[in-house]
Parts: sequence; structure tokens; C-alpha cells
Amino acid sequence: MKLNIAVLPGDGIGPEVTNQAVKALKAIASEFNHNFKFTTADVGAVAIDKHNDALPEETLELCKKSDAILFGAIGDPKYDNNPSAKVRPEQGLLKLRKELGLYANIRPVKAYNTLLDKSPLKKNIIEGTDISIYRELTGGIYFGDKTLSKDGNSASDLCAYSREEIERVAHLAFVAAEHRNHKVTLVDKANVLETSRLWRKVVKEVAEQYPDVTLDFLFVDNAAMQMILNPKQFDVILTENMFGDIISDEASVIGGSIGLLASASVGDKYAMFEPIHGSYPQAANKGIANPIASILSAAMLLSHFDLHNEAELIRLAVEKSLKLNITTPDINSVVNTVTTANVGDFIEDFL
Amino acid sequence: MKLNIAVLPGDGIGPEVTNQAVKALKAIASEFNHNFKFTTADVGAVAIDKHNDALPEETLELCKKSDAILFGAIGDPKYDNNPSAKVRPEQGLLKLRKELGLYANIRPVKAYNTLLDKSPLKKNIIEGTDISIYRELTGGIYFGDKTLSKDGNSASDLCAYSREEIERVAHLAFVAAEHRNHKVTLVDKANVLETSRLWRKVVKEVAEQYPDVTLDFLFVDNAAMQMILNPKQFDVILTENMFGDIISDEASVIGGSIGLLASASVGDKYAMFEPIHGSYPQAANKGIANPIASILSAAMLLSHFDLHNEAELIRLAVEKSLKLNITTPDINSVVNTVTTANVGDFIEDFL
Ligand SMILES: CC(C)[C@H](C(=O)O)[C@@H](O)C(=O)O
Ligand SMILES: CC(C)[C@H](C(=O)O)[C@@H](O)C(=O)O
Repeated sequence: MKLNIAVLPGDGIGPEVTNQAVKALKAIASEFNHNFKFTTADVGAVAIDKHNDALPEETLELCKKSDAILFGAIGDPKYDNNPSAKVRPEQGLLKLRKELGLYANIRPVKAYNTLLDKSPLKKNIIEGTDISIYRELTGGIYFGDKTLSKDGNSASDLCAYSREEIERVAHLAFVAAEHRNHKVTLVDKANVLETSRLWRKVVKEVAEQYPDVTLDFLFVDNAAMQMILNPKQFDVILTENMFGDIISDEASVIGGSIGLLASASVGDKYAMFEPIHGSYPQAANKGIANPIASILSAAMLLSHFDLHNEAELIRLAVEKSLKLNITTPDINSVVNTVTTANVGDFIEDFL
Repeated sequence: MKLNIAVLPGDGIGPEVTNQAVKALKAIASEFNHNFKFTTADVGAVAIDKHNDALPEETLELCKKSDAILFGAIGDPKYDNNPSAKVRPEQGLLKLRKELGLYANIRPVKAYNTLLDKSPLKKNIIEGTDISIYRELTGGIYFGDKTLSKDGNSASDLCAYSREEIERVAHLAFVAAEHRNHKVTLVDKANVLETSRLWRKVVKEVAEQYPDVTLDFLFVDNAAMQMILNPKQFDVILTENMFGDIISDEASVIGGSIGLLASASVGDKYAMFEPIHGSYPQAANKGIANPIASILSAAMLLSHFDLHNEAELIRLAVEKSLKLNITTPDINSVVNTVTTANVGDFIEDFL
């Protein structure tokens, strides 16, 4: 298969981990005789520094011409604590999601057997957890009107949703549930928010088209609690943009390290693959960043194009590296010298 | 001391647990020669059923005439899944908060030594955790304009904040930090929300008045993760209404049971005390509801009026009941027959 892959490494540890994912994809290409072409472009703080734009036009153009996008991470503390910064790294990511119509962010959360001890949660709580989170990604309070009063003393953000925005991501979640454990949990705050009540109404209607999938509801505060008390109760979680951001980062503790979690952001035309971790500037260029989340994002990319054997092989390689403790310090309590590149090299060799 | 206390038991397990808290307060009154007068009123689903109003005028009047309010819990599933219900139990609570100007919700989160094993988190993670969460309670997306389009196919909720709303709760948080470990963590989403950027700006300014308190910042998604990875890093957490709702319920897992967590909602004129748990209708009238959160809310009420010895005695009684395993099934894995009232009786006797 021929694939044009846009590579957007971004900030902080983004470039290091993305490099390892590209290595894995190249190994797969040569093993399975695929033709993968990689083109790199700037996004985030690095793009602001170079082009004064978190998402330069040519980066967006490249993405639109590509079959898939491999994304690293963005964000830089020099912009976080500057409330008056007009251009922010995050705008690059948000604009990319919006422009490419990537309305569903899919985050698998699994407890790896070899890593059960690494989690802050007790083994009996997490063992066997297997969740797929469907987060709406191009609507809600992320993209609603924002205001700041002239005197700078009051501000607002609008959370808005339409039936169509809810339906399309809901369908993806129900289809996923049909191939999994046949359960969708809608996380909302319907006792307070009008938008949540709309979500409940629309999702109930969508559910009628999937008679073999059970739908239940959890308020987001309760969901944040249940995710830790009993994560095994979940199969597919469906939720709006902001709640999904919070719940999925929280769920990352189950796996023992956020450095393991991959995600896919998909729409009707484009698809982007990225680790759920951030840019962790403190860890950049030290060789301590875990490349597995990025490598597993590459596996999700392969699955997206129905290259299931290839994706499976990457997952096997990752499990092997975990079993052999060829892992970065976030999950490696014994050996202290395995670097980002070491993990990538091992996986490349295995492939 | 003479105190007029309004008792609003509400729905589900609300009445049962509130009863036990009243028993504890009566025991304290007779022991310390205080004059506490209790007057009960309806709120929530029970008030809708009786008066077609989640917060009847007479309940509000009673609260305004009282020195403090002891609140149970509200909510009934028959309203949750009915998106077109015009009157909801939760409106009673929200209106009460707004009308009484209860702008700060304070939730202490502690790991009890006797209960370390009950938490889904590992002992070494939670041991020694002592957090105080300051959640803004009368602003943000809870109280902003809500719209539902005529055709019912789109909806919106507005999140708005003003400098004043942020300042007053921030001051409470910093004063608390001065008496604790001198650290405030602001939880926000300043990389996306305009309101969060306003929070950051204003809270930084407030911080300048408290030179011996350190201020740091966490994005809410990261905070949801850090709360589980390393809760000991937190001292005082300050955050807006919706994030506070989510983060504080999540934090409840640290204590081993949400049935242990009390809260105070305070403003410039009034103060209300309530368990953070909900109405758990499934558990109502079975004698299995844990009254400790409500009893500890009564202790917070006493502290509020500087009755510190009295409050301390209640806390001692609670710790004793935990140590002797006189506890309801949520935290009692051995004896299965201790009821809500048994716990209350024990604490009453101890006092
Ligand atoms: C960087 C930030 C804007 C982003 C988000 O909040 O969506 C990130 O946290 C994520 O989840 O991908
Ligand atoms: C019942 C509900 C409206 C309420 C809230 O969201 O504030 C509750 O969850 C709480 O935290 O007190």
C-alpha cells in the first residue's frame, strides 16, 4: 500500500517520540513491502517561533494532501502563564482538528498485564480493564464564542452543540460497541447543562438503531469517581469535548503511565494519530520520553487503513519491550539507562 | 451559644444521614450547654412532589432566618432521564446556593489511617494526603445563560466569570493556605478557555497579597491525573465551579468512601453544610447509608462558629467508630449488620 504520511512533531518531547514512531512505520513498510512517504511540517510553539503562526498554511495544506497525519505534542510553558499572548501553540492543534473535521477522538485504555504493578491503583481494581473512550473533538466549549470585556475584568466561553455534532460521534461509538462488549456509557452533566440534556436526547435516539448495545448514563462527577473505583464496568465511553479531555487523561493512570496511551482523531475525510500525553518540556532532549504512545499511535494509523497484521505486529513488539523491561524511566524501576531511542531501536529490530 | 439551624434533608438517603447528624449536634448541645434549635423544611424532588417547586419560598425564608443550614442530598432518577422536565430537584440546590450567595464550596480530603486499605489506590500513594478543595460555587457554566433552539436541535450553556467572583473565593483559599501548607494550586484550562485565562490573571494578583503562599497552576486534565498519581503534592486546590465538581468527586476515592466526605458552602452572610455524596436513591431506607459525611458536615458547622472543641470531639467520635469498625457496608468488609442509625447511636453515645 502507498501512503503519504504528514509528520507533525511539534514541541517538547514531540519530535523525539515521533521519530521512533516513524522508525517503526519504516520497518513495517520494508517488511510488508509498503510504500510510506513521510513529510515533516511545523506546528505549535515551534511554528510560532519560526512563522508566527501555530498552524502555518503550508502545514495545513500538507495535511490535506496526505492520507494520514502523525502528530507529536504541542505546548510550551512560556505561553501558558501569559494570559495576553495572542498566538498560542494549542491554537495550532485546535485549528487542525477543526479544519480537518476530526470530530471524534478515540482513546483506548488498557491495563497491560506486565505493568499492573506500575499503576497507583490496586491490581484487583484495574486487571482486565479495557475501555474505549469516544470524545467529541470539534465542538463544545473549545470552539464556542469567547469574550473578554474591554476592561479585562470579565470573560466568557460558550459551550454549544447541535444534533448533527452529537449524532456523528455517537454513531462511531455505537459501531465500536457492537464490535466490543455492547455497552455505551454517556458521560454528561444533564442535571445542570442544557447541552447535556440535548446529548442525552440525541444519543437515546441513536441508540435505538443499535438494539444489541446497552446505553447507560453517568454524570461526569460520578464518572470521574467510577473510573477509579471500578474501571472494569466501562466498555465504550461517549462524551463531549471538555469532559472527554478530563476523563481520558484521568483514565490514563490505569495503564501505569500516560506514556503508553495512543489516540486517533478521525473525521469523514481525514485522520490524525497522536499520543495523548503532552509536550512535557521538562523532559525534552533527555532521552527519557516514552515513545510507546507514539508508536502505538502509528499502530492505530495502520489499523485505520485495514493493515491489521501490521498493526498487530507493532503491538506485539511493544508488549515484548514491556515484558523485557526495555522501557523508559516512567515505567522502568530497575534499569535506569534505557532511552527513548533504545526503545525505538528494539521495536524496529523486532519488526 | 444559641444557634438556629435549618435542616433540609432532601431526597434519597438525605433524611437518614441528616437525622444522625442532628443527633450528634443535639448530643453536643447538651454536653456543652448550647441551645441549638432545629427546623426542618423541604427541598429537591420531595419538594417538587409536595409543592411543585424544588425550593419552596418558605424553605428559602427559613434558611435566611437561620444561622446555618444542614443539608442532606437531592436528586431523583425519575427527573434525570427526562430532558423535558421543567422542574428539577437540582434547581433547588442551585437556587439555594445562588440566593444565599454561597460562593465557596470547601471540601477537605483526607486519608484516614484506619481506612487506608479501603481505597482503590495503593497505600503508599494516599498515606498522609491532606487536601482542601476550594470550589467556586455560584458562577461559571452552572449559572450562565442556557438556550435550547425552538426545534430542539441545538443547545448552549454559557460559562462566564467576573474578577469579583474570582477574587472572593481566591482570598478564602489563600487564607486557608496560610494556616496549612502554604500552597495553592489553581486548576484551570487556560490553554483553551478565556475564563480560565481571567482566573489565572486575577488569582496571580490575589497571590501577591499572600507572599508566604506559593501559587502553582495545573490544567484540569493534568490535575485529574495528578490527583491519582500523587495526591500528596496538593495542599489547597482552587478552581471554578464545574472543574471543582469533577475534581472533588474524583478526590473522594482517596478516603476510601465518598460516604466520609463533608463540605461547607459559605458566603458573606450564610453558610450551609452538606455531605458531598448524592441522594443514592437505590440505597434509601435500607439502613446502609454512611452517616459520617453528614456528621462531619455538622462538625464543619461547629467549626464555622468557632466551636472548635465541639467539632474536634465529633471528629474524635468518628475516628473511634472507624477504628472499632462500627461502620456501614461501604467501608465495613467484616461485619455486615451495622446500620446508619447504629453508627449515629455510637457517635451520640460517645459524645
Ligand atoms: C493541548 C490541549 C489543547 C489538548 C486538549 O485539551 O484537547 C490536549 O489536552 C488534548 O487532550 O489533546
Ligand atoms: C447535584 C448537583 C447539581 C451538584 C453539583 O453539580 O454541584 C452536586 O454534584 C454537587 O457537587 O454538589
